[in-house]
Amino acid sequence: MVISFKNDAPIEQVEELVENLRRYCSNVQVVKGEEISLICLVGETIHIDENMINVYPWINSVARVSTPYKLVSREFKKEDTVINVKGVSIGGEKITIFAGPCAVESREQILSICSSLKLAGFDCLRGGAFKMRTSPYSFQGLGYEALKYLKEASEEYLVPIVCEIVSVNDIDEYASKCDIIQVGARNMQNFDLLKALGKVNKPILLKRGMAASIEELLMAAEYIVSNGNPNVILCERGIKTFEKSTRNTLDLSAIPVLKKLTHLPVIVDPSHATGKKEYVLPMSLASIAAGADGLLLEVHNNPITAKSDASQALTIDDYIDLRERLALVAKAVGRKL
Amino acid sequence: MVISFKNDAPIEQVEELVENLRRYCSNVQVVKGEEISLICLVGETIHIDENMINVYPWINSVARVSTPYKLVSREFKKEDTVINVKGVSIGGEKITIFAGPCAVESREQILSICSSLKLAGFDCLRGGAFKMRTSPYSFQGLGYEALKYLKEASEEYLVPIVCEIVSVNDIDEYASKCDIIQVGARNMQNFDLLKALGKVNKPILLKRGMAASIEELLMAAEYIVSNGNPNVILCERGIKTFEKSTRNTLDLSAIPVLKKLTHLPVIVDPSHATGKKEYVLPMSLASIAAGADGLLLEVHNNPITAKSDASQALTIDDYIDLRERLALVAKAVGRKL
Amino acid sequence: MVISFKNDAPIEQVEELVENLRRYCSNVQVVKGEEISLICLVGETIHIDENMINVYPWINSVARVSTPYKLVSREFKKEDTVINVKGVSIGGEKITIFAGPCAVESREQILSICSSLKLAGFDCLRGGAFKMRTSPYSFQGLGYEALKYLKEASEEYLVPIVCEIVSVNDIDEYASKCDIIQVGARNMQNFDLLKALGKVNKPILLKRGMAASIEELLMAAEYIVSNGNPNVILCERGIKTFEKSTRNTLDLSAIPVLKKLTHLPVIVDPSHATGKKEYVLPMSLASIAAGADGLLLEVHNNPITAKSDASQALTIDDYIDLRERLALVAKAVGRKL
Amino acid sequence: MVISFKNDAPIEQVEELVENLRRYCSNVQVVKGEEISLICLVGETIHIDENMINVYPWINSVARVSTPYKLVSREFKKEDTVINVKGVSIGGEKITIFAGPCAVESREQILSICSSLKLAGFDCLRGGAFKMRTSPYSFQGLGYEALKYLKEASEEYLVPIVCEIVSVNDIDEYASKCDIIQVGARNMQNFDLLKALGKVNKPILLKRGMAASIEELLMAAEYIVSNGNPNVILCERGIKTFEKSTRNTLDLSAIPVLKKLTHLPVIVDPSHATGKKEYVLPMSLASIAAGADGLLLEVHNNPITAKSDASQALTIDDYIDLRERLALVAKAVGRKL
Repeated sequence: MVISFKNDAPIEQVEELVENLRRYCSNVQVVKGEEISLICLVGETIHIDENMINVYPWINSVARVSTPYKLVSREFKKEDTVINVKGVSIGGEKITIFAGPCAVESREQILSICSSLKLAGFDCLRGGAFKMRTSPYSFQGLGYEALKYLKEASEEYLVPIVCEIVSVNDIDEYASKCDIIQVGARNMQNFDLLKALGKVNKPILLKRGMAASIEELLMAAEYIVSNGNPNVILCERGIKTFEKSTRNTLDLSAIPVLKKLTHLPVIVDPSHATGKKEYVLPMSLASIAAGADGLLLEVHNNPITAKSDASQALTIDDYIDLRERLALVAKAVGRKL
Repeated sequence: MVISFKNDAPIEQVEELVENLRRYCSNVQVVKGEEISLICLVGETIHIDENMINVYPWINSVARVSTPYKLVSREFKKEDTVINVKGVSIGGEKITIFAGPCAVESREQILSICSSLKLAGFDCLRGGAFKMRTSPYSFQGLGYEALKYLKEASEEYLVPIVCEIVSVNDIDEYASKCDIIQVGARNMQNFDLLKALGKVNKPILLKRGMAASIEELLMAAEYIVSNGNPNVILCERGIKTFEKSTRNTLDLSAIPVLKKLTHLPVIVDPSHATGKKEYVLPMSLASIAAGADGLLLEVHNNPITAKSDASQALTIDDYIDLRERLALVAKAVGRKL
Repeated sequence: MVISFKNDAPIEQVEELVENLRRYCSNVQVVKGEEISLICLVGETIHIDENMINVYPWINSVARVSTPYKLVSREFKKEDTVINVKGVSIGGEKITIFAGPCAVESREQILSICSSLKLAGFDCLRGGAFKMRTSPYSFQGLGYEALKYLKEASEEYLVPIVCEIVSVNDIDEYASKCDIIQVGARNMQNFDLLKALGKVNKPILLKRGMAASIEELLMAAEYIVSNGNPNVILCERGIKTFEKSTRNTLDLSAIPVLKKLTHLPVIVDPSHATGKKEYVLPMSLASIAAGADGLLLEVHNNPITAKSDASQALTIDDYIDLRERLALVAKAVGRKL
Repeated sequence: MVISFKNDAPIEQVEELVENLRRYCSNVQVVKGEEISLICLVGETIHIDENMINVYPWINSVARVSTPYKLVSREFKKEDTVINVKGVSIGGEKITIFAGPCAVESREQILSICSSLKLAGFDCLRGGAFKMRTSPYSFQGLGYEALKYLKEASEEYLVPIVCEIVSVNDIDEYASKCDIIQVGARNMQNFDLLKALGKVNKPILLKRGMAASIEELLMAAEYIVSNGNPNVILCERGIKTFEKSTRNTLDLSAIPVLKKLTHLPVIVDPSHATGKKEYVLPMSLASIAAGADGLLLEVHNNPITAKSDASQALTIDDYIDLRERLALVAKAVGRKL
């Protein structure tokens, strides 16, 4: 951490600050300049809050030179974290495919889609129970019933399931029914939920918020990991920008950036990011080429009757085609489906 | 709502869609063109989900011509909503000042700040109990203890209090202790929380999410109002942009836009938006000049020892100065403090 | 400037870099840490290019602690720059109003608008000659003819004129006809043009680019000033964000930020920023309350027949009303029209 | 185009508008609703300026249903445009690699890099002559001398060259020396330059502006094409967002979006977008997987001594490695190097 300050700062206040900082970090040095000077801290500074320093009117700027997170950082743990769920691994050589409908609409629907996906080949079934919808007048999901049907599909087709949690009160229910618990983009900084999920013995699929920087995503993961749960899967799903031809702007550079900064697995959701089915194939191929460990895909047996986000859902035939092409790209970058 | 489609669309599917749309809206007309045609719906379309239409591959685009919200819209209710809390009105001629520290740090601190503010003049005491902090290693607030101290200050100084809720499980506690319940920017689309707050008999101060469009803010308010609670105060507090010289970019145009679209009161939080105390004064004056109904300000008796966001807190002296200047600008635009 | 690097960096390369940096800045110190170390430069670093440092693979990060511009900075010149043009001052106590149509459409139109504005009171006539239009099929302006009519209006009504230049080849023509030369947002980083304008003896009104940070705006101004022309007026006119209810997002916080960083005058264009006439009044009042030195307003005698951007143009009556209200807000913040 | 208006609009004004619109588009229909009504135009509407309609106070909204550009649209020309330059094709099955240093620094440098690239395999030499630098104090390029050296390299190694133009006055010089003329991101809406390049008989490589929507990029291309030059290569190079871990956010979804909307070739510049050499490989692979027709890469023989943007330049060895991997991904998506 480097703090720059104007040389006309009151000496006793500067000394007070330096003293204070020494409590957090033993290596604190002052570099004097003609007009401005610097306080340099090298060492662990994650417990120091910039806002506590900025309060002095004579402070010019405060900049971190090391990351504000620790447990999720690549420096803390060099080798990739590989998460295993019922025989499915996430973060290793294999590309992991999470597929299924946006929302569970009925027992028949989810069993039928799961059966088709099983035949086509996939790794983990996804399906929404409680939907996060911008409008209170949109379909909100089947709720606990959906969890029951997902569980049934999981048992019948021997495939793990992932489902998005929207209330901290549902943690027990989700922990007992799901293999992986998803935190949606809108809840990425619902710290109350994150802390509680840190105490659960299930992997967490954490989606990047639409306005969250990569650093904020890693800080959200740090909330979960520092509360005791080391199994976090990060998911890029598009950020808000001025561009309107896709629902959000898929930030694929986030993949190599995350791979450099953290040991956690990184997957991509091209369905929600683009909002249009026709862009899902190219962005899936691009994600894998960029180094993603997996994909979260919306697949529906009959998109025209789907109750939510139908315009972004692949049909089973689309999925089979995508899977074939994906296998070729995966191989080209030394991975496999 | 206007749906454009290519003329080579299968006629039976177009008819199916038109039929379907007629269930929601009686006035559906088709306008034929040479290459593309339009389906026009005029009337209430809030129950129609665009994604359900976009699913057909022959659809070009779907655009709303009326708002996707209803109860919060200016069309639904022409006159301004004025909320009254313990003798304080929000949304009328008077500018309402919500002031206090970012976080309640001790009983002495909050009583002392409240006493100073009372002397200087203000309308509602703010103070954080459970803090939403990006880092798990930052000070997280005193929790329920903070609520107790706020309540004590409220009773001693006869001033209503507002406090941010972070867990749906705390609703009863907040409803019994606070006069206004605040929803923070990171929870603006925590729909689970919004629905629950729709059933509470306390006004809600709803902050705009950092990536939320004005329309999404109004949809979040619609969640609360459509669940039974008509008393929502909207708060602009900055959005995420590429500009880094302020923490967020305060979108003051949102004030006249919201005033046009909704009857709900609109206030501004210049402290969190800018992140720097020195910009709070000019942005407070600008907010009132732009038509805001109130301000949410961070004021601390000793910012240097503050435990969170100290760099943006005004001292009591700053506040007294701001209040004087604010009175002049308020008067210039036909309002008063 | 602070450069952080990993301790496993090759010593001779670090020494080479330090040696190199000493050529630019005499005060270079190395602060050793356990895992990373810092190279600190305090002094003038504007001639150092970060990209030249980042090239070493062992560099962690490079951060400036002083500004990358010099001549336009408040540190270089403490007192406000006040520009005088034919008796009109920009940057002093008085608020300067630049008003006129988006485009000059005919001799009669510009003379008629100028006459009405003169009666209502204003400081400088604006009007477009060559229009920057997104579509090649939109009205592109009257060109040199427009300059001639503006000049005529200027002489008849004794008011200075400002006009946007779009080609470096037109500099002589503009310098001979206009009192102030405007650089549009899309040309803010047309460095070829900026350098040439640095050699002109007329003030430059420099608009902030829609994707330009405040720092980039100041660097663009530095191009002009370092080439010899000290008279630059900065203009905030909205930045690109995800919000769509206004054409761009007017960044009013930029006013106090710029006032802190630079001595140059700062004005605001609420017409282009919001794109809607109804938001021009509140954003004009807010701009002045926030500390702007002036406004650039679109005013048209008959917006319904206007050939460009008519939806954002005030009528003369709107302008008279705005001017009255503006006078009150200006007075409230210690300024005057 | 669909115009919605309030039913209390003055009938004669509505009729005037409808009359007016019929001059541009024969198929104009009015759809009446209870509170609002619609004016629907189906047909060519590119000559209609929305701002001309928005001027009426009773207008609710104006939305286009067809694109505001024509010549560059996929509807106007179904088959892909393939551009041929000295035996190199851009836009066909083959992936086109444009490589070279950010700036030409000396005769020796450019000849040496070109020789190495020729050996490794590439299609077109790039190198900057006049550099667009944010700071006036940064290296600005060798200017015309650079063009001479590029031309020499082109002749010696029989490879076409591309170079960025920064001044409209240099068109003749560029047209005589370069095979492809590049327009940089900051000049994407320098319409004066675009119009002039529409009259040149050389292909134009048009980079997307950092705040330009895909539609604005296509409108900029339409400026060139409608002025007579059909050979435009579009280049995605990152947009401005709040994310700071890469210089800009590379919008790879723009590739399939552009492929759908236009027949023009689309390439990607991962070097400028990410600003960091280590991200160039993954983003290059991702670009090709997403369907890009080529890449614009910075390659330097000695990045540590490079005079601009060295941190993003690949070494020749990096390039050889990238090329090998790229060949595999290209093959996986049915393309070839």
